[in-house]
Amino acid sequence: METLSYWLGMAGTVAFSVTAVLALAPKNIDLFGAVVLGMITAIGGGTIRDLILDVPVFWSTDLNYIWVSVGASIAAFSAHSLFNRKDIFSLMLYVDGLGVALFAIQAADKVWDLGFGLPVAPVILGIVTAIGGGLIRDVLAGRQTLLMSRDLYATPILFGCILYVFLLHLLPEYRFISAIGSIFCIFAIRASAIHWALSVPDWLTMRVKSE
Amino acid sequence: METLSYWLGMAGTVAFSVTAVLALAPKNIDLFGAVVLGMITAIGGGTIRDLILDVPVFWSTDLNYIWVSVGASIAAFSAHSLFNRKDIFSLMLYVDGLGVALFAIQAADKVWDLGFGLPVAPVILGIVTAIGGGLIRDVLAGRQTLLMSRDLYATPILFGCILYVFLLHLLPEYRFISAIGSIFCIFAIRASAIHWALSVPDWLTMRVKSE
Amino acid sequence: METLSYWLGMAGTVAFSVTAVLALAPKNIDLFGAVVLGMITAIGGGTIRDLILDVPVFWSTDLNYIWVSVGASIAAFSAHSLFNRKDIFSLMLYVDGLGVALFAIQAADKVWDLGFGLPVAPVILGIVTAIGGGLIRDVLAGRQTLLMSRDLYATPILFGCILYVFLLHLLPEYRFISAIGSIFCIFAIRASAIHWALSVPDWLTMRVKSE
Repeated sequence: METLSYWLGMAGTVAFSVTAVLALAPKNIDLFGAVVLGMITAIGGGTIRDLILDVPVFWSTDLNYIWVSVGASIAAFSAHSLFNRKDIFSLMLYVDGLGVALFAIQAADKVWDLGFGLPVAPVILGIVTAIGGGLIRDVLAGRQTLLMSRDLYATPILFGCILYVFLLHLLPEYRFISAIGSIFCIFAIRASAIHWALSVPDWLTMRVKSE
Repeated sequence: METLSYWLGMAGTVAFSVTAVLALAPKNIDLFGAVVLGMITAIGGGTIRDLILDVPVFWSTDLNYIWVSVGASIAAFSAHSLFNRKDIFSLMLYVDGLGVALFAIQAADKVWDLGFGLPVAPVILGIVTAIGGGLIRDVLAGRQTLLMSRDLYATPILFGCILYVFLLHLLPEYRFISAIGSIFCIFAIRASAIHWALSVPDWLTMRVKSE
Repeated sequence: METLSYWLGMAGTVAFSVTAVLALAPKNIDLFGAVVLGMITAIGGGTIRDLILDVPVFWSTDLNYIWVSVGASIAAFSAHSLFNRKDIFSLMLYVDGLGVALFAIQAADKVWDLGFGLPVAPVILGIVTAIGGGLIRDVLAGRQTLLMSRDLYATPILFGCILYVFLLHLLPEYRFISAIGSIFCIFAIRASAIHWALSVPDWLTMRVKSE
């Protein structure tokens, strides 16, 4: 169980780094920039979470997160034309969606265990962990952040984290199953959004009427 | 006294969230983005302050800050045409100015009590608390930050915080009155700037002479 | 030795603040913005490092860092036409390069002493300390960050920090000489890059082939 979660975390780290580097390819960055931005995408969100929780940052005690994200970033940089092949890029998007789901629920679980700001902080820090790294990357790279797009990326995380907190509260004895269910829920919405190119519906978008 | 300060803090939280969401309206953000950016504006500055002070982040022990900013952001999102009415938007600008004044002096007061980096840190962290959240919002939303505008927004905070530190040093027995005076001083300058559309004078602006 | 390092640190603080303000001159910022951005450039990177290390931020116990960066920013703001003179600006670029080298190795040394995330964290936090403040400045000022340029700025820091960690590991008894050597190594590459306008070579830059 622990082991599975660990390997899924590493898979998510790979996917975050690779999708970050590929997203930046059109900007002509150099190897150093690619590795820094790949690493920030993979570990930035969890770092902010740990700073707010005032616990040691997760990668300082398990450097594998660093090595894996450096390795994946270099691989994506070197072989970006391979990763840009339609099928592999598409696979990476789904793995990224799984990574997001996993990082969010792992974070919510950690915050719940620490009894930090319940019941709201697990949701907030789940979202921060899942999208914080990507936000920093976009800001540093001068790209529009996902908060300003209508991509269905962050909303599923919100639903999944709220679902998980409800399940932990109502069914504390089924923690493992609740985690799996919440991860699946986030991934299912995200995968549907990728597959059918769904976006946030109009009525949830603010529109300034021209008068 | 404590109660008054608490309610003023909540009023500031409402104003920060509402003005944030309204400022973003032309960008066509969705509900999720509006709530995240409203919340970051309201609690982001205080979060950075608490991280630097190495004390528990303020909202983790009093979740009302979260609920109020989520509620205010949703309200502003849903009723943005109401809030955009000239008189209500103008009211919000003044409440925002009051919020800035209050957040800054509350922060300076907290830092002074902790004896952290006196006498400079209360001023620095007062400014960080008051404008930090707005800076993060503008960066994430791809807007020009207020540091690059000539709006008379941050300078009054600087004056007010320095004034408060001087008063705490010179008249330690009149702490409450000093706080009220400093808050009033910031608000008065800011309100004048809103009312008469004042900006930073030319001689305080760097101008590269074309030679 | 301690004293030399301290004065070099202060020289670096001056150079970081001055080059920051000069870089922003074309943006017509006001005095307040100039001081805030000068200060962030000088102390931002070290602040992030200390937050991640969970130690007191360095400037809270030695306010000279603040005073020096405020003073240098005001001087650069007031006398920017002087500092923009070709010879003085060029001198500042070299002092900035020395500051970067010094900040990076000082940080790597501090992290090594704390035994934090060895052997990777000294390299990561050395880079964060040296370029973090400049990244925040560029983001707040709406400029392209150095990660997206091909300037040979960050790569020498990476080499120098890796070199220093190797030397600390292999020759622990020659710590002082190792530090001097690594600082010199970073500075030499950076100074060459300034002098000969070197940039990152093509084969280390990702290029999306148009197909």
